[in-house]
Amino acid sequence: MRVLGIDPGLTRCGWGVVEGRPGSRPTALGVGVVRTNPELDLELRLLEVHTAVTALLREHRPTAMAIERVFHQNNKGTATGTAQAAGVAALAAAQADVPVAWHTPSEVKAAISGNGRADKDQVTLMVTRVLGLATAPKPADAADALALAVCHVWRGPAQDRLRVAAIAGGIGAPVRATTLPRWTGISR
Amino acid sequence: MRVLGIDPGLTRCGWGVVEGRPGSRPTALGVGVVRTNPELDLELRLLEVHTAVTALLREHRPTAMAIERVFHQNNKGTATGTAQAAGVAALAAAQADVPVAWHTPSEVKAAISGNGRADKDQVTLMVTRVLGLATAPKPADAADALALAVCHVWRGPAQDRLRVAAIAGGIGAPVRATTLPRWTGISR
Repeated sequence: MRVLGIDPGLTRCGWGVVEGRPGSRPTALGVGVVRTNPELDLELRLLEVHTAVTALLREHRPTAMAIERVFHQNNKGTATGTAQAAGVAALAAAQADVPVAWHTPSEVKAAISGNGRADKDQVTLMVTRVLGLATAPKPADAADALALAVCHVWRGPAQDRLRVAAIAGGIGAPVRATTLPRWTGISR
Repeated sequence: MRVLGIDPGLTRCGWGVVEGRPGSRPTALGVGVVRTNPELDLELRLLEVHTAVTALLREHRPTAMAIERVFHQNNKGTATGTAQAAGVAALAAAQADVPVAWHTPSEVKAAISGNGRADKDQVTLMVTRVLGLATAPKPADAADALALAVCHVWRGPAQDRLRVAAIAGGIGAPVRATTLPRWTGISR
Protein backbone atom coordinates (compact mmCIF):
# COMPACT_ATOMS: atom_id res chain seq x y z
CA MET A 1 0.00 0.00 0.00
CA ARG A 2 1.46 3.37 -1.07
CA VAL A 3 -0.16 6.48 0.40
CA LEU A 4 0.20 10.16 -0.56
CA GLY A 5 -0.52 12.20 2.58
CA ILE A 6 -1.66 15.80 2.11
CA ASP A 7 -1.66 18.47 4.85
CA PRO A 8 -3.75 21.01 2.91
CA GLY A 9 -3.03 24.72 2.75
CA LEU A 10 -2.65 27.57 0.27
CA THR A 11 0.53 29.15 1.64
CA ARG A 12 2.10 25.79 2.52
CA CYS A 13 0.62 22.44 1.43
CA GLY A 14 2.61 19.58 2.95
CA TRP A 15 2.95 16.23 1.14
CA GLY A 16 4.56 12.90 1.96
CA VAL A 17 4.59 9.47 0.30
CA VAL A 18 4.80 6.36 2.48
CA GLU A 19 4.79 2.67 1.58
CA GLY A 20 4.00 -0.18 3.97
CA ARG A 21 1.38 -2.36 5.59
CA PRO A 22 -0.19 -2.62 9.04
CA GLY A 23 2.13 -3.96 11.74
CA SER A 24 5.39 -3.29 9.93
CA ARG A 25 7.77 -0.35 9.67
CA PRO A 26 6.71 1.88 6.77
CA THR A 27 9.14 3.49 4.31
CA ALA A 28 9.16 7.16 3.26
CA LEU A 29 9.48 7.61 -0.51
CA GLY A 30 9.22 11.40 -0.68
CA VAL A 31 8.31 14.48 1.28
CA GLY A 32 7.96 18.18 0.58
CA VAL A 33 5.87 21.33 0.62
CA VAL A 34 3.95 23.07 -2.17
CA ARG A 35 4.03 26.85 -1.69
CA THR A 36 1.87 29.34 -3.57
CA ASN A 37 2.38 33.08 -3.89
CA PRO A 38 0.00 34.96 -1.52
CA GLU A 39 -0.10 37.85 -4.01
CA LEU A 40 -1.67 35.67 -6.71
CA ASP A 41 -5.44 35.65 -7.15
CA LEU A 42 -7.10 32.81 -5.22
CA GLU A 43 -8.06 30.81 -8.33
CA LEU A 44 -4.43 30.85 -9.54
CA ARG A 45 -3.20 29.61 -6.14
CA LEU A 46 -5.72 26.75 -6.33
CA LEU A 47 -4.46 26.01 -9.85
CA GLU A 48 -0.90 25.78 -8.51
CA VAL A 49 -1.92 23.35 -5.74
CA HIS A 50 -3.95 21.22 -8.17
CA THR A 51 -1.14 21.11 -10.74
CA ALA A 52 1.47 20.17 -8.10
CA VAL A 53 -0.70 17.41 -6.56
CA THR A 54 -1.50 16.04 -10.04
CA ALA A 55 2.25 15.87 -10.75
CA LEU A 56 2.86 14.05 -7.42
CA LEU A 57 0.14 11.50 -8.27
CA ARG A 58 1.79 10.85 -11.66
CA GLU A 59 5.29 10.57 -10.19
CA HIS A 60 4.54 8.38 -7.15
CA ARG A 61 1.47 6.38 -8.32
CA PRO A 62 -0.02 5.99 -4.81
CA THR A 63 -2.83 3.49 -4.17
CA ALA A 64 -4.57 5.98 -1.86
CA MET A 65 -4.51 9.64 -0.80
CA ALA A 66 -4.96 10.66 2.85
CA ILE A 67 -6.00 14.29 3.52
CA GLU A 68 -6.28 16.03 6.88
CA ARG A 69 -9.90 16.67 7.77
CA VAL A 70 -9.85 20.16 9.26
CA PHE A 71 -12.75 21.64 11.18
CA HIS A 72 -13.24 25.32 10.50
CA GLN A 73 -13.63 26.18 14.17
CA ASN A 74 -9.89 25.71 14.68
CA ASN A 75 -8.41 28.59 12.66
CA LYS A 76 -11.13 30.88 11.35
CA GLY A 77 -9.11 33.17 9.13
CA THR A 78 -7.60 30.52 6.85
CA ALA A 79 -10.27 27.79 7.13
CA THR A 80 -11.91 28.52 3.77
CA GLY A 81 -8.58 28.54 1.89
CA THR A 82 -7.55 25.31 3.62
CA ALA A 83 -10.85 23.64 2.68
CA GLN A 84 -10.46 24.81 -0.92
CA ALA A 85 -6.87 23.51 -1.12
CA ALA A 86 -8.09 20.16 0.28
CA GLY A 87 -10.89 20.19 -2.31
CA VAL A 88 -8.60 20.62 -5.33
CA ALA A 89 -6.22 17.95 -3.94
CA ALA A 90 -9.16 15.52 -3.59
CA LEU A 91 -10.27 16.46 -7.13
CA ALA A 92 -6.79 15.62 -8.48
CA ALA A 93 -7.06 12.19 -6.79
CA ALA A 94 -10.53 11.55 -8.28
CA GLN A 95 -9.20 12.52 -11.74
CA ALA A 96 -6.38 9.96 -11.27
CA ASP A 97 -8.87 7.33 -9.96
CA VAL A 98 -7.13 7.25 -6.56
CA PRO A 99 -9.47 6.84 -3.54
CA VAL A 100 -9.32 9.53 -0.82
CA ALA A 101 -9.47 9.02 2.95
CA TRP A 102 -9.90 11.86 5.46
CA HIS A 103 -8.30 11.70 8.91
CA THR A 104 -8.68 14.21 11.74
CA PRO A 105 -5.53 15.63 13.40
CA SER A 106 -6.33 13.72 16.62
CA GLU A 107 -6.66 10.41 14.69
CA VAL A 108 -3.26 11.03 13.12
CA LYS A 109 -1.62 12.00 16.42
CA ALA A 110 -3.09 8.94 18.16
CA ALA A 111 -1.91 6.61 15.36
CA ILE A 112 1.66 7.95 15.23
CA SER A 113 2.32 8.68 18.92
CA GLY A 114 -0.43 6.91 20.89
CA ASN A 115 -1.61 10.34 22.14
CA GLY A 116 -4.38 12.21 20.32
CA ARG A 117 -3.20 15.45 21.92
CA ALA A 118 0.49 15.21 21.02
CA ASP A 119 2.09 18.55 20.07
CA LYS A 120 3.87 19.32 16.78
CA ASP A 121 7.34 18.49 18.13
CA GLN A 122 6.19 15.08 19.37
CA VAL A 123 4.57 14.27 16.01
CA THR A 124 7.74 15.26 14.13
CA LEU A 125 9.88 13.18 16.55
CA MET A 126 7.68 10.09 16.13
CA VAL A 127 7.50 10.45 12.33
CA THR A 128 11.30 10.64 12.20
CA ARG A 129 11.64 7.51 14.38
CA VAL A 130 8.90 5.42 12.76
CA LEU A 131 10.21 6.07 9.25
CA GLY A 132 13.88 5.73 10.32
CA LEU A 133 14.83 9.13 8.89
CA ALA A 134 18.32 10.56 9.46
CA THR A 135 16.95 14.07 10.02
CA ALA A 136 13.56 15.41 11.06
CA PRO A 137 11.37 16.51 8.12
CA LYS A 138 10.76 20.27 7.99
CA PRO A 139 8.60 22.33 8.00
CA ALA A 140 5.89 20.92 10.29
CA ASP A 141 3.47 20.68 7.31
CA ALA A 142 5.80 18.14 5.65
CA ALA A 143 6.08 16.08 8.85
CA ASP A 144 2.28 16.22 9.28
CA ALA A 145 1.76 14.94 5.73
CA LEU A 146 4.08 11.98 6.42
CA ALA A 147 2.22 11.32 9.69
CA LEU A 148 -1.09 11.31 7.76
CA ALA A 149 0.29 8.79 5.27
CA VAL A 150 1.65 6.54 8.07
CA CYS A 151 -1.72 6.80 9.87
CA HIS A 152 -3.53 5.66 6.73
CA VAL A 153 -1.10 2.80 6.03
CA TRP A 154 -1.71 1.51 9.57
CA ARG A 155 -5.42 2.30 9.92
CA GLY A 156 -6.70 2.37 6.34
CA PRO A 157 -7.30 -1.35 5.86
CA ALA A 158 -9.34 -1.47 9.07
CA GLN A 159 -11.48 1.42 7.80
CA ASP A 160 -11.89 -0.37 4.47
CA ARG A 161 -13.09 -3.49 6.29
CA LEU A 162 -15.63 -1.39 8.20
CA ARG A 163 -16.82 0.12 4.93
CA VAL A 164 -17.17 -3.29 3.27
CA ALA A 165 -19.14 -4.51 6.29
CA ALA A 166 -21.36 -1.41 6.13
CA ILE A 167 -21.97 -1.94 2.41
CA ALA A 168 -22.79 -5.61 2.98
CA GLY A 169 -25.34 -4.42 5.54
CA GLY A 170 -26.67 -1.79 3.13
CA ILE A 171 -25.55 1.08 5.38
CA GLY A 172 -24.12 4.25 3.83
CA ALA A 173 -23.07 2.39 0.73
CA PRO A 174 -21.04 4.58 -1.63
CA VAL A 175 -22.39 4.32 -5.19
CA ARG A 176 -19.02 3.32 -6.62
CA ALA A 177 -18.81 0.32 -4.31
CA THR A 178 -22.41 -0.83 -4.70
CA THR A 179 -22.08 -0.95 -8.46
CA LEU A 180 -18.97 -3.15 -8.22
CA PRO A 181 -20.84 -6.52 -8.04
CA ARG A 182 -22.13 -5.90 -11.57
CA TRP A 183 -18.55 -6.24 -12.75
CA THR A 184 -17.81 -9.44 -10.83
CA GLY A 185 -16.39 -12.07 -13.12
CA ILE A 186 -16.14 -9.67 -16.05
CA SER A 187 -12.60 -9.10 -17.27
CA ARG A 188 -11.71 -5.47 -17.85
CA MET B 1 -19.33 41.46 -20.58
CA ARG B 2 -20.57 37.88 -20.12
CA VAL B 3 -20.55 36.50 -16.56
CA LEU B 4 -21.03 32.96 -15.27
CA GLY B 5 -22.45 33.23 -11.74
CA ILE B 6 -21.90 30.29 -9.37
CA ASP B 7 -23.82 29.72 -6.12
CA PRO B 8 -21.54 26.96 -4.84
CA GLY B 9 -22.72 23.76 -3.18
CA LEU B 10 -22.26 20.00 -3.34
CA THR B 11 -25.91 18.93 -3.23
CA ARG B 12 -27.09 21.84 -5.41
CA CYS B 13 -24.66 24.16 -7.23
CA GLY B 14 -26.58 26.97 -8.95
CA TRP B 15 -25.28 28.56 -12.16
CA GLY B 16 -26.47 31.40 -14.39
CA VAL B 17 -25.00 33.20 -17.41
CA VAL B 18 -25.75 36.90 -17.89
CA GLU B 19 -24.58 39.33 -20.57
CA GLY B 20 -24.67 43.12 -20.29
CA ARG B 21 -22.93 46.27 -19.10
CA PRO B 22 -23.39 48.74 -16.24
CA GLY B 23 -26.49 50.94 -16.50
CA SER B 24 -28.39 48.77 -18.98
CA ARG B 25 -30.78 45.84 -18.69
CA PRO B 26 -28.77 42.58 -18.73
CA THR B 27 -29.80 39.45 -20.64
CA ALA B 28 -29.94 35.91 -19.23
CA LEU B 29 -28.32 33.34 -21.52
CA GLY B 30 -28.70 30.26 -19.36
CA VAL B 31 -29.52 29.07 -15.87
CA GLY B 32 -29.53 25.76 -14.04
CA VAL B 33 -28.40 23.65 -11.12
CA VAL B 34 -25.67 21.01 -10.90
CA ARG B 35 -26.65 18.26 -8.47
CA THR B 36 -24.35 15.57 -7.13
CA ASN B 37 -25.30 12.29 -5.48
CA PRO B 38 -24.89 12.59 -1.66
CA GLU B 39 -24.04 8.87 -1.51
CA LEU B 40 -20.94 9.34 -3.66
CA ASP B 41 -17.55 9.77 -1.99
CA LEU B 42 -16.66 13.47 -1.53
CA GLU B 43 -13.86 13.47 -4.14
CA LEU B 44 -16.26 12.10 -6.77
CA ARG B 45 -18.84 14.79 -5.97
CA LEU B 46 -16.12 17.44 -6.41
CA LEU B 47 -15.19 15.78 -9.72
CA GLU B 48 -18.82 16.09 -10.86
CA VAL B 49 -18.96 19.81 -9.95
CA HIS B 50 -15.61 20.49 -11.63
CA THR B 51 -16.60 18.61 -14.80
CA ALA B 52 -19.97 20.40 -15.02
CA VAL B 53 -18.47 23.87 -14.49
CA THR B 54 -15.73 23.14 -17.05
CA ALA B 55 -18.45 22.20 -19.57
CA LEU B 56 -20.37 25.44 -18.80
CA LEU B 57 -17.21 27.50 -19.39
CA ARG B 58 -16.69 25.79 -22.76
CA GLU B 59 -20.32 26.21 -23.80
CA HIS B 60 -20.88 29.84 -22.73
CA ARG B 61 -17.34 31.33 -23.01
CA PRO B 62 -17.85 33.91 -20.22
CA THR B 63 -15.39 36.78 -19.77
CA ALA B 64 -15.61 36.43 -15.97
CA MET B 65 -16.86 34.09 -13.25
CA ALA B 66 -18.59 35.43 -10.11
CA ILE B 67 -18.74 33.11 -7.09
CA GLU B 68 -20.59 33.67 -3.83
CA ARG B 69 -18.16 34.32 -1.00
CA VAL B 70 -19.62 32.37 1.91
CA PHE B 71 -18.49 32.81 5.46
CA HIS B 72 -18.38 29.57 7.39
CA GLN B 73 -20.18 31.04 10.38
CA ASN B 74 -23.46 30.99 8.46
CA ASN B 75 -24.16 27.27 8.07
CA LYS B 76 -21.62 25.21 9.95
CA GLY B 77 -22.56 21.70 8.81
CA THR B 78 -22.12 22.26 5.08
CA ALA B 79 -19.56 25.09 5.08
CA THR B 80 -16.57 22.90 4.25
CA GLY B 81 -18.35 21.21 1.32
CA THR B 82 -19.52 24.60 0.04
CA ALA B 83 -15.99 26.01 0.22
CA GLN B 84 -14.64 22.95 -1.61
CA ALA B 85 -17.27 23.23 -4.35
CA ALA B 86 -16.39 26.93 -4.74
CA GLY B 87 -12.71 25.94 -4.88
CA VAL B 88 -13.10 23.45 -7.74
CA ALA B 89 -15.33 25.95 -9.64
CA ALA B 90 -12.62 28.63 -9.26
CA LEU B 91 -10.02 26.06 -10.39
CA ALA B 92 -12.07 25.34 -13.54
CA ALA B 93 -12.10 29.09 -14.27
CA ALA B 94 -8.32 29.37 -13.80
CA GLN B 95 -7.79 26.39 -16.12
CA ALA B 96 -9.93 28.21 -18.75
CA ASP B 97 -8.06 31.51 -18.12
CA VAL B 98 -11.26 33.20 -16.90
CA PRO B 99 -10.81 35.66 -14.00
CA VAL B 100 -12.83 35.04 -10.82
CA ALA B 101 -14.58 37.62 -8.63
CA TRP B 102 -16.07 36.88 -5.22
CA HIS B 103 -19.17 38.68 -3.95
CA THR B 104 -20.80 38.34 -0.53
CA PRO B 105 -24.56 37.58 -0.31
CA SER B 106 -25.22 41.09 1.05
CA GLU B 107 -23.33 42.70 -1.89
CA VAL B 108 -25.46 40.69 -4.31
CA LYS B 109 -28.73 41.51 -2.51
CA ALA B 110 -27.87 45.22 -2.39
CA ALA B 111 -26.95 45.26 -6.09
CA ILE B 112 -30.08 43.46 -7.29
CA SER B 113 -32.70 44.88 -4.88
CA GLY B 114 -31.13 47.92 -3.21
CA ASN B 115 -31.42 46.09 0.14
CA GLY B 116 -28.50 44.09 1.54
CA ARG B 117 -30.90 42.17 3.79
CA ALA B 118 -33.45 41.18 1.14
CA ASP B 119 -34.92 37.67 1.60
CA LYS B 120 -34.81 34.85 -0.97
CA ASP B 121 -38.26 35.64 -2.40
CA GLN B 122 -37.32 39.30 -2.96
CA VAL B 123 -34.07 38.33 -4.70
CA THR B 124 -35.92 35.89 -6.99
CA LEU B 125 -38.57 38.54 -7.78
CA MET B 126 -35.98 41.19 -8.66
CA VAL B 127 -33.88 38.75 -10.74
CA THR B 128 -37.01 37.83 -12.70
CA ARG B 129 -37.89 41.52 -13.29
CA VAL B 130 -34.36 42.78 -14.07
CA LEU B 131 -33.74 40.00 -16.63
CA GLY B 132 -37.29 40.22 -18.04
CA LEU B 133 -37.95 36.51 -17.50
CA ALA B 134 -41.42 35.06 -18.14
CA THR B 135 -41.22 32.81 -15.08
CA ALA B 136 -39.18 32.95 -11.88
CA PRO B 137 -36.02 30.79 -11.99
CA LYS B 138 -36.14 27.81 -9.61
CA PRO B 139 -34.72 26.56 -7.31
CA ALA B 140 -33.40 29.49 -5.24
CA ASP B 141 -29.79 28.41 -6.00
CA ALA B 142 -30.38 29.07 -9.71
CA ALA B 143 -31.92 32.50 -9.00
CA ASP B 144 -29.01 33.32 -6.67
CA ALA B 145 -26.49 32.43 -9.38
CA LEU B 146 -28.24 34.78 -11.84
CA ALA B 147 -28.28 37.51 -9.17
CA LEU B 148 -24.51 37.01 -8.68
CA ALA B 149 -23.91 37.37 -12.42
CA VAL B 150 -26.08 40.53 -12.61
CA CYS B 151 -24.26 41.96 -9.57
CA HIS B 152 -20.90 41.39 -11.26
CA VAL B 153 -22.04 42.85 -14.61
CA TRP B 154 -23.14 46.00 -12.78
CA ARG B 155 -20.37 46.22 -10.20
CA GLY B 156 -17.48 44.34 -11.75
CA PRO B 157 -16.03 47.15 -13.88
CA ALA B 158 -15.95 49.46 -10.84
CA GLN B 159 -14.03 46.80 -8.90
CA ASP B 160 -11.64 46.35 -11.84
CA ARG B 161 -10.99 50.12 -11.90
CA LEU B 162 -10.21 50.01 -8.17
CA ARG B 163 -7.85 47.10 -8.79
CA VAL B 164 -6.07 48.87 -11.65
CA ALA B 165 -5.70 51.96 -9.44
CA ALA B 166 -4.32 49.80 -6.63
CA ILE B 167 -1.84 48.13 -8.98
CA ALA B 168 -0.75 51.50 -10.35
CA GLY B 169 -0.08 52.52 -6.76
CA GLY B 170 1.80 49.26 -6.10
CA ILE B 171 -0.82 48.05 -3.59
CA GLY B 172 -1.81 44.39 -3.50
CA ALA B 173 -0.75 43.89 -7.09
CA PRO B 174 -1.65 40.42 -8.37
CA VAL B 175 1.38 38.75 -9.96
CA ARG B 176 -0.48 38.04 -13.19
CA ALA B 177 -1.16 41.75 -13.72
CA THR B 178 2.30 42.94 -12.72
CA THR B 179 4.04 40.50 -15.07
CA LEU B 180 1.88 41.55 -18.05
CA PRO B 181 4.15 44.45 -19.17
CA ARG B 182 6.91 41.94 -19.94
CA TRP B 183 4.74 40.56 -22.74
CA THR B 184 3.79 43.91 -24.19
CA GLY B 185 4.55 44.00 -27.90
CA ILE B 186 5.55 40.34 -28.02
CA SER B 187 3.33 38.26 -30.27
CA ARG B 188 2.29 34.93 -28.78
